[in-house]
Amino acid sequence: MILVINAGSSSIKFRLFNDSDKKNPIDILDGIAERITIGGDVSFKYEGKKYEYEVALPNHEVAIKFILDKLIELNIISNVDDISAVGFRVVHGGTISKSSIINDDVFNKIKDAVKLAPLHNPGAITAIEAVKKVMPKAELVACFDTAFHQTLAEEQYLYAVPYSWYQKYGVRKYGFHGISYQYITEKMSEVLNKPKDKLNLIVCHLGNGASIACIKNGKSFDTTMGLTPLAGVMMGTRSGDIDPSIIEYMCKQLNTDASKITNMLNKESGLLGVSGKSSDMRDVAGGYFSGDSDFKRALNKYTQVAADYIIRFANLLGHDIDAIVFTAGVGENSAHTRQFTLQKLPLLDIKLDMDKNEERNYKDYKYISAADSKIKVLAFRTNEELMICKDTISLTK
Amino acid sequence: MILVINAGSSSIKFRLFNDSDKKNPIDILDGIAERITIGGDVSFKYEGKKYEYEVALPNHEVAIKFILDKLIELNIISNVDDISAVGFRVVHGGTISKSSIINDDVFNKIKDAVKLAPLHNPGAITAIEAVKKVMPKAELVACFDTAFHQTLAEEQYLYAVPYSWYQKYGVRKYGFHGISYQYITEKMSEVLNKPKDKLNLIVCHLGNGASIACIKNGKSFDTTMGLTPLAGVMMGTRSGDIDPSIIEYMCKQLNTDASKITNMLNKESGLLGVSGKSSDMRDVAGGYFSGDSDFKRALNKYTQVAADYIIRFANLLGHDIDAIVFTAGVGENSAHTRQFTLQKLPLLDIKLDMDKNEERNYKDYKYISAADSKIKVLAFRTNEELMICKDTISLTK
Repeated sequence: MILVINAGSSSIKFRLFNDSDKKNPIDILDGIAERITIGGDVSFKYEGKKYEYEVALPNHEVAIKFILDKLIELNIISNVDDISAVGFRVVHGGTISKSSIINDDVFNKIKDAVKLAPLHNPGAITAIEAVKKVMPKAELVACFDTAFHQTLAEEQYLYAVPYSWYQKYGVRKYGFHGISYQYITEKMSEVLNKPKDKLNLIVCHLGNGASIACIKNGKSFDTTMGLTPLAGVMMGTRSGDIDPSIIEYMCKQLNTDASKITNMLNKESGLLGVSGKSSDMRDVAGGYFSGDSDFKRALNKYTQVAADYIIRFANLLGHDIDAIVFTAGVGENSAHTRQFTLQKLPLLDIKLDMDKNEERNYKDYKYISAADSKIKVLAFRTNEELMICKDTISLTK
Repeated sequence: MILVINAGSSSIKFRLFNDSDKKNPIDILDGIAERITIGGDVSFKYEGKKYEYEVALPNHEVAIKFILDKLIELNIISNVDDISAVGFRVVHGGTISKSSIINDDVFNKIKDAVKLAPLHNPGAITAIEAVKKVMPKAELVACFDTAFHQTLAEEQYLYAVPYSWYQKYGVRKYGFHGISYQYITEKMSEVLNKPKDKLNLIVCHLGNGASIACIKNGKSFDTTMGLTPLAGVMMGTRSGDIDPSIIEYMCKQLNTDASKITNMLNKESGLLGVSGKSSDMRDVAGGYFSGDSDFKRALNKYTQVAADYIIRFANLLGHDIDAIVFTAGVGENSAHTRQFTLQKLPLLDIKLDMDKNEERNYKDYKYISAADSKIKVLAFRTNEELMICKDTISLTK
């Protein structure tokens, strides 16, 4: 069995995979432990049934022990050693370029990257330490949201800031959502029946956090997020790119500091900021069609910014684009986001199939472009946990 | 006669035009007063001769008086009233949408905009006050770098930040270099013999400060600079767009505040930051060809960012682009900047004429695209002072 863990400072999302067929691991259980350190809730789904517990979880170690005990109690595993490996999602891997066995060197690098991702990496670190104690025999693997983008060229990853900021403080574009991009790239290679190293894609990972990647010859060539996940396209509550002077300007207007303004750019901006009402694309698209001008403004802006990046990445690929792919919550489910974004790309001569675009029930993916569209467009369900599981299998045992 | 003034906090650039032919004003004298308040130098060129003076200039009023006295002394004017109107360049006009006679209302709006352009507007205000005293009969006109961009749609001028920042503090994209864009648009209408309101252009104003504008039907449709002239493309010493989180991150690394970091983004970034050596494109392009990797990195980045915005604006125009125009110091003179930028636009199928591109001696403009290029490309000498003079003529008398 393989356990996949995505941990925050007070939560642990977990998914258990049966890896008896190494090429096709099957997820059998999916759950979350929440309110760690401030209370404690654990819930998971197994064989169609939902299990829920309220239990004191003073730390990550107790939470992982509790989960393992339940797995044994329900006869899902007979003992802890049935789980041969644990794969962790780690948001920031600095300049680590691929999924890695967590040895001392890798663990130190994850700790070094806390400076770059103070909100994200500490949760993973705490969870790794807990698993080391509770499951001493399991092999541990880290999969990084940044790793896939380590193939960016200097022009794409450097900012036009003092070069010493890059040398001394690591200021560069790292990019995120790399686990999802890696998954989509591998699946698209199968779907299009084209070798991965010949594949040119523009992948729009539009969730509550959102980014777009330009994938050239199967590798990340550019992406919208940067040093942090704030940059790039407009998101649910994040601004994406803005005039960097706005921070100083708003510090003066609100008599506050850069941390407070950056926090507002992360949590009160994006769809929520522009509409003044909601960060949820379902509300925004719903409101758009009921004629709400605030939601209209928000959806127009959101799709314009996405289109601006898609055309920029299309130009990086030249005339050789295999497909544009929409994925993650909004990308997989919001037909209007896809439609309005594609309609803002006159230069690409895309023909959308409106019926296919609006069809809500599809399994892994669907084409949404018409058969005679110059560029293929798909909606594709991403699966980061499965990607982590596969990388964990290939690196262990 | 018409006097055109471009004033900073310690300098006044001035140009005198003979407007006997109202349609074709001729500049007859061109000069600068410098080190105002901290010393004093005045120099100007007239009939091929250079005049230079060292004189105490405690304030703008003394400087303007001194200039006028010299004009009388040299019999260029017989008295102050020979100058019927004075046109001022004002960087930030807030939401003023066109050049305007400076009445109380307009002057108050210029003062209100100091908040938005604390480094730029105070110089113009001081100069306007001085001219009012010294030339009480002259009509005064303000031409704004922002005015041309007031035609932007909401999607283009709003940032994805809290909407209240726009409502209460005026946080929006204003755009700059509008006087230059207006000039280029009017001249291109003549050159292409196409009505201005049918003209679709992408104009790259690349000087030490640099921006690009998307001009649709003769009006600004989008542009790269934002609330301030820091945003957008990479410049001589300015970063252009970056991940906005970099400011908070660098505040922490350097233990300083947003003002200090923003100042570094304005003065130590761009070509200077990336090369670590020079902000001057002549040095950068020269160094590129002598194999200097720092300059190579800087020029690659600079031209990639410019190309990224050109393709984005091309997409906004769809398949109907009349021309791409390069102007201002770098745009008019750096063949390599133009070449490398255009080579990074495979989607536009532009054919560059290398010989024409490298020809250094041209008068007002030259085509640099080949005859069979899908899109016409020109280098064009801008003339902001002439534009200010013309607007001043059309608004006065």
